[in-house]
Amino acid sequence: MKTKWINKIIKYDGSQLRPLFGYENFNILGNSIIAWIGPCEIPFSNMKDLEDVLAVSPIRGDFMLHFIVEIFHQNLFSGVSLQRLFASIVKDEIMEMMTVKKSKFKLFRDGDDIYCLDRKLSISIASQSVLSTQIHFAVNVTNEGTPVKTLCLKDLKIEPEILAKMILKKFQTEYNSIVAATMKVRSL
Amino acid sequence: MKTKWINKIIKYDGSQLRPLFGYENFNILGNSIIAWIGPCEIPFSNMKDLEDVLAVSPIRGDFMLHFIVEIFHQNLFSGVSLQRLFASIVKDEIMEMMTVKKSKFKLFRDGDDIYCLDRKLSISIASQSVLSTQIHFAVNVTNEGTPVKTLCLKDLKIEPEILAKMILKKFQTEYNSIVAATMKVRSL
Amino acid sequence: MKTKWINKIIKYDGSQLRPLFGYENFNILGNSIIAWIGPCEIPFSNMKDLEDVLAVSPIRGDFMLHFIVEIFHQNLFSGVSLQRLFASIVKDEIMEMMTVKKSKFKLFRDGDDIYCLDRKLSISIASQSVLSTQIHFAVNVTNEGTPVKTLCLKDLKIEPEILAKMILKKFQTEYNSIVAATMKVRSL
Amino acid sequence: MKTKWINKIIKYDGSQLRPLFGYENFNILGNSIIAWIGPCEIPFSNMKDLEDVLAVSPIRGDFMLHFIVEIFHQNLFSGVSLQRLFASIVKDEIMEMMTVKKSKFKLFRDGDDIYCLDRKLSISIASQSVLSTQIHFAVNVTNEGTPVKTLCLKDLKIEPEILAKMILKKFQTEYNSIVAATMKVRSL
Amino acid sequence: MKTKWINKIIKYDGSQLRPLFGYENFNILGNSIIAWIGPCEIPFSNMKDLEDVLAVSPIRGDFMLHFIVEIFHQNLFSGVSLQRLFASIVKDEIMEMMTVKKSKFKLFRDGDDIYCLDRKLSISIASQSVLSTQIHFAVNVTNEGTPVKTLCLKDLKIEPEILAKMILKKFQTEYNSIVAATMKVRSL
Amino acid sequence: MKTKWINKIIKYDGSQLRPLFGYENFNILGNSIIAWIGPCEIPFSNMKDLEDVLAVSPIRGDFMLHFIVEIFHQNLFSGVSLQRLFASIVKDEIMEMMTVKKSKFKLFRDGDDIYCLDRKLSISIASQSVLSTQIHFAVNVTNEGTPVKTLCLKDLKIEPEILAKMILKKFQTEYNSIVAATMKVRSL
Repeated sequence: MKTKWINKIIKYDGSQLRPLFGYENFNILGNSIIAWIGPCEIPFSNMKDLEDVLAVSPIRGDFMLHFIVEIFHQNLFSGVSLQRLFASIVKDEIMEMMTVKKSKFKLFRDGDDIYCLDRKLSISIASQSVLSTQIHFAVNVTNEGTPVKTLCLKDLKIEPEILAKMILKKFQTEYNSIVAATMKVRSL
Repeated sequence: MKTKWINKIIKYDGSQLRPLFGYENFNILGNSIIAWIGPCEIPFSNMKDLEDVLAVSPIRGDFMLHFIVEIFHQNLFSGVSLQRLFASIVKDEIMEMMTVKKSKFKLFRDGDDIYCLDRKLSISIASQSVLSTQIHFAVNVTNEGTPVKTLCLKDLKIEPEILAKMILKKFQTEYNSIVAATMKVRSL
Repeated sequence: MKTKWINKIIKYDGSQLRPLFGYENFNILGNSIIAWIGPCEIPFSNMKDLEDVLAVSPIRGDFMLHFIVEIFHQNLFSGVSLQRLFASIVKDEIMEMMTVKKSKFKLFRDGDDIYCLDRKLSISIASQSVLSTQIHFAVNVTNEGTPVKTLCLKDLKIEPEILAKMILKKFQTEYNSIVAATMKVRSL
Repeated sequence: MKTKWINKIIKYDGSQLRPLFGYENFNILGNSIIAWIGPCEIPFSNMKDLEDVLAVSPIRGDFMLHFIVEIFHQNLFSGVSLQRLFASIVKDEIMEMMTVKKSKFKLFRDGDDIYCLDRKLSISIASQSVLSTQIHFAVNVTNEGTPVKTLCLKDLKIEPEILAKMILKKFQTEYNSIVAATMKVRSL
Repeated sequence: MKTKWINKIIKYDGSQLRPLFGYENFNILGNSIIAWIGPCEIPFSNMKDLEDVLAVSPIRGDFMLHFIVEIFHQNLFSGVSLQRLFASIVKDEIMEMMTVKKSKFKLFRDGDDIYCLDRKLSISIASQSVLSTQIHFAVNVTNEGTPVKTLCLKDLKIEPEILAKMILKKFQTEYNSIVAATMKVRSL
Repeated sequence: MKTKWINKIIKYDGSQLRPLFGYENFNILGNSIIAWIGPCEIPFSNMKDLEDVLAVSPIRGDFMLHFIVEIFHQNLFSGVSLQRLFASIVKDEIMEMMTVKKSKFKLFRDGDDIYCLDRKLSISIASQSVLSTQIHFAVNVTNEGTPVKTLCLKDLKIEPEILAKMILKKFQTEYNSIVAATMKVRSL
């Protein structure tokens, strides 16, 4: 799995969750995770989760830390399983940073979301194209512009770029070890 | 996903990780997670992880809390992804219980293992048959009989049955919500 | 499998055979079969069967009983196999109703079509999207507006809603028992 | 799909439901349906349906008409769907023969079984190996030796070889048209 | 596998590489290889290989021999493997013809391309839709209009139609024997 | 793809074509190609190709250059396609070496076999397990002990180890470029 931190503000409007986005724009060929910072505003026509569309839930935030994972030749059940694992990794990584800072915020994961009490820290979606499964996961950097009660990295005093780079590395290691684990066992 | 707590001591020797074990023995038909308590001793001929076989690493413990997950018609990449998520759920659940108890042990997940510093709390394997992918995950109830430096639920003052029932429920909810998430999104 | 009888006239123009139609419009999440009554007229641009397009065969009827089946994460070979089975169930159900009425019409299935001698009772198509396989199956309620020699439920004195509800239930039972049958056998 | 009527008495003991049985014994390479007549007695160790094993239901008959279908590179969901369709074809074919004979027996299909009232006419199983999905379907030629209340072809005055050849041809046509139907539609 | 030589000049602009092109235009249903002669000019919007798009490499030639292979229900890994094999067959066939002519040109294959020293003889792409994998492969008939240093059939004194018909036949034989080879082996 | 030249005589008796052979014996984890020299004698019980078993064709040779390819999570259609491509690479590589030597032997590939006129240079089989597809390909080093008219590397004055190392490298490059080609195209 390749990783890339993109040192550029890019607005996320949902159109970035398309096959080969990383290859087309940053020359990242193959299974990958990329991250960047930027505003988020997803028009309903770009929303992939029909649940949000049906509930007319806007998805936005003035400043978020974005991740896009693209895995080729796996199905959406895998994609969603990885998405949940990703959320778990992000939560653990932030908790770890807060332990170091002796901060008191306590996060929990509910499906693909991370919360602190009733404050939502993140958004996420996973979907599928003919050739790959993709995950978008984004963490609030600030609370401005969010349509619900949110928590943000600023509240936690966490530098988004530092967090992003930790997570890129952790998820790369996790993905690679998952793949290895599928090639060293006897079948049942 | 069906769940079942088996109120009976069963020794785990690796042969339980076979297709339809839950259906054959407890009449659980379909995707399922079952749990029970019992000793663990896996002869090398039953080990599925060739890495352990090659390293001649014995796998045993006098008393462990066992889980077997069986998911039909999914591949091993999914199975291992779910296994990692399962480990994460177990770790979080134990951490949650310890917070309530104001206990100080701090756990972390490394791949499919849970540790406290250098003490190993759990063992796990995921493999595949023609029709299903299966996960075995077991947590030390005591430290007796383990071949490495271990941590156990007794150290943590956690009742295995209570933990098991929490996890059965959590994983059932997680699995069901993963499946739902694969059937409500527009493709990319 | 979820079922739903939609008590509303909806014109079928082929655009209803799209992924998540049931979820988007009737909040039916997951594998499902839905049914309703309405006119049918499919422009060539919406036809999925290229055989019909190449033969320039119009597909229409002033009043038909429509079914849409959506099965996730299965391929089109499964979808077409189920479609044939569905046609068989519809034929058997109508035959059963006619036996009760001591009616003389004799139906037979040919692939995905149901006939009485040279009179066509139904139309059907199965196709595939990235995430699901879908079947449209429709039975003439009247003979008006059909481009070929047809038979209709009115000829058979069958109330479409009663037939629809029987079939929804039968197909649900069949589908659920098919799924169960894939999870209780030893592999070969 | 290839078909073959095997003009030889062969006892079915469950071991015939193995990959490449038709190729190994009758040089039928590829997707196929073969049929023959012979006694049936399946030891529990050869039973593929764990439901029967758990219920300790013996499966036997002194004289049955056997079919084995083997389809490569499809999954068990397809296999079971085809099995149900096969049962439907057998039932319809027999009903058709009885109409000609002006016989009064009325058959119905329940899942993979064919009944006349409470008398069982057939047995069936579908399972999966690494490379193919296989179906065994057998119809009682006589009622001798069956462990439950049965109906047989002799009761219906149907010559098994004639029925077999009709069904081989019908299923071949059905299978070929299913495959064709997967290669002429636009995706959704 | 069906084959068809299309005795008509058709310009290739990339839009021909779409599912069911052979069925829609030449009534070839199923797995197929078709061939024809015509100019080639692919606008960037029709290019499937993002590598070419990113490199802004034009793809054209005034006169080329075109092949389109369509294989249903296989993945792109298979498609690309077959594409490489196809390139190998074309190269071998041309080499064979040149041996007969005692010609000195020596060809080699590099991935999906055929070269003579630094002169490129062919272009190719393989991609995937929901229901099929497709390959376009084209050989220069003349060197006019090509954007790079090329070799052409005219240089080799090879009649394109003769070559095309040889290759249609060779690839059909190869494909059919590959399929047969997947249905006559014991699994491991 | 990993490659390994095994500098040790190992007799090939068919049992080496088993999942994880490379990992178990040489610690090669994942998609791989390995090669070594040794005698070949495959008892019928170990033969995977039923065609050979049915024809009672012995497979042996006193000294052969063996290759085993193992690719995880791909089907047998892919495996056989790769096998044919592998045979093509071996043939081209030998032809290339002979051109340099100004040797006159002319080889051709027929399916998975390489011949010089009616003399057979190689044997091969591809099959499938639950988790991987595997290819065995072997080239005669000498003609001793072969049951049919053969050609061997000694006839061609080719050093087996040199050939093996060239092919390991070529196939690794080919495989890696195939995988890359599945992750850089727009779907159709």
